[in-house]
Amino acid sequence: MNIGIFGTGGVARTIAAKFVSLGHTVTLGTRNVEETKSRTQGDAMGNVSFQEWFGKNSSVKLATYADAAAFGELLVNATSGTGSLNAFKSAGEKNLNGKILIDISNPLDFSKGFPPSLSVSNTDSLGEQIQRTFPNAKVVKALNTLAHPLMVNPSLVNNGDHTVPICGNDDEAKKKVIALLNTFGWKTENILDLGDITNARGTEAFLLLWVRMFGKFQTPMFQFKIVK
Amino acid sequence: MNIGIFGTGGVARTIAAKFVSLGHTVTLGTRNVEETKSRTQGDAMGNVSFQEWFGKNSSVKLATYADAAAFGELLVNATSGTGSLNAFKSAGEKNLNGKILIDISNPLDFSKGFPPSLSVSNTDSLGEQIQRTFPNAKVVKALNTLAHPLMVNPSLVNNGDHTVPICGNDDEAKKKVIALLNTFGWKTENILDLGDITNARGTEAFLLLWVRMFGKFQTPMFQFKIVK
Repeated sequence: MNIGIFGTGGVARTIAAKFVSLGHTVTLGTRNVEETKSRTQGDAMGNVSFQEWFGKNSSVKLATYADAAAFGELLVNATSGTGSLNAFKSAGEKNLNGKILIDISNPLDFSKGFPPSLSVSNTDSLGEQIQRTFPNAKVVKALNTLAHPLMVNPSLVNNGDHTVPICGNDDEAKKKVIALLNTFGWKTENILDLGDITNARGTEAFLLLWVRMFGKFQTPMFQFKIVK
Repeated sequence: MNIGIFGTGGVARTIAAKFVSLGHTVTLGTRNVEETKSRTQGDAMGNVSFQEWFGKNSSVKLATYADAAAFGELLVNATSGTGSLNAFKSAGEKNLNGKILIDISNPLDFSKGFPPSLSVSNTDSLGEQIQRTFPNAKVVKALNTLAHPLMVNPSLVNNGDHTVPICGNDDEAKKKVIALLNTFGWKTENILDLGDITNARGTEAFLLLWVRMFGKFQTPMFQFKIVK
């Protein structure tokens, strides 16, 4: 499958590499292709520079948001949440319409340092904003509640036995996302479909707890498991 | 120990009965004692009327907020979150000063139906508001992330193996609350001290996810367990 991933940071790279390992073809989308390619600095999260990563992942292509979106039969939002809407607007609605858009992003606002707050929350969510702005895209919020190494390799903690919530308005799209998550190693019984996209208010707000647990544990390699 | 519990609903009753079973003496605080005693209607959550419950729990006393606060060596906030600050103001600061105040409440706003939003969130929290308003009380946010039957009987799900976050500015107060939670059946390894009271932004925001899981499961008898 041809997949367009918005973003070039840790989440985008992890998802891209996993899709490639599963035989899919991936184009990453960015605002300015030449500027992104020229990045030689790693980031504060311990990710290597884009140039270094790109050199080692030669089957992944880099393109503008519009070209990546046009390329993808399925799209993934792995931009920083506060830049997501502008990225999609720059991609153009016609390149999104009818497509599944897996939204992994969170509207984290680091303007006052760590821990971040959310730039939209409580009575709205980024997932809903994207869905409202692009009503013909099939937005499925997923994987935004855990660290990116765990997204594509759930067995890294508790033998893969923990919970990932998803939500979205289109049941067929969610079925396809669940099948994709299965190929990432997620057991269907651990994928919790909360319902429509308004449930993103819950999964995004969870980040306000997640960032504090991250601060406490000093590692992102943890997860939650719902028990009954 | 003499314990003053603010509130007369399901959470207050469950905590009161548990404290009594452990040999403590409990006074519930309410705005209007006679009005509360006259309540003969159960609530939408399946709790019996206050009159019926009070008749069966004869060792529990009912008093004004001020009298319950004056009585308690330790205080518990089990009011609805949107009424908490007024309840404490009515109790009088001198009746709170120097005391541990376990804040179980959540600022749930049901004015637009279910699921509720939060009346304070993201960049502030009810726990912080209470601590700021009463700087000489020792506010410990605890037990606000799960259903009340589980608060005092964690073994009701997953053999008691799940996580309860706490936070507060006073380390000695938190130690005492952890010891109390141990008497409720909580293993120390499952009590997650996140740090100071600002972490209530995380544990209260979790309710935005909790209420949606409650809606999905159609039962409050679930919990989360942090796995690594």
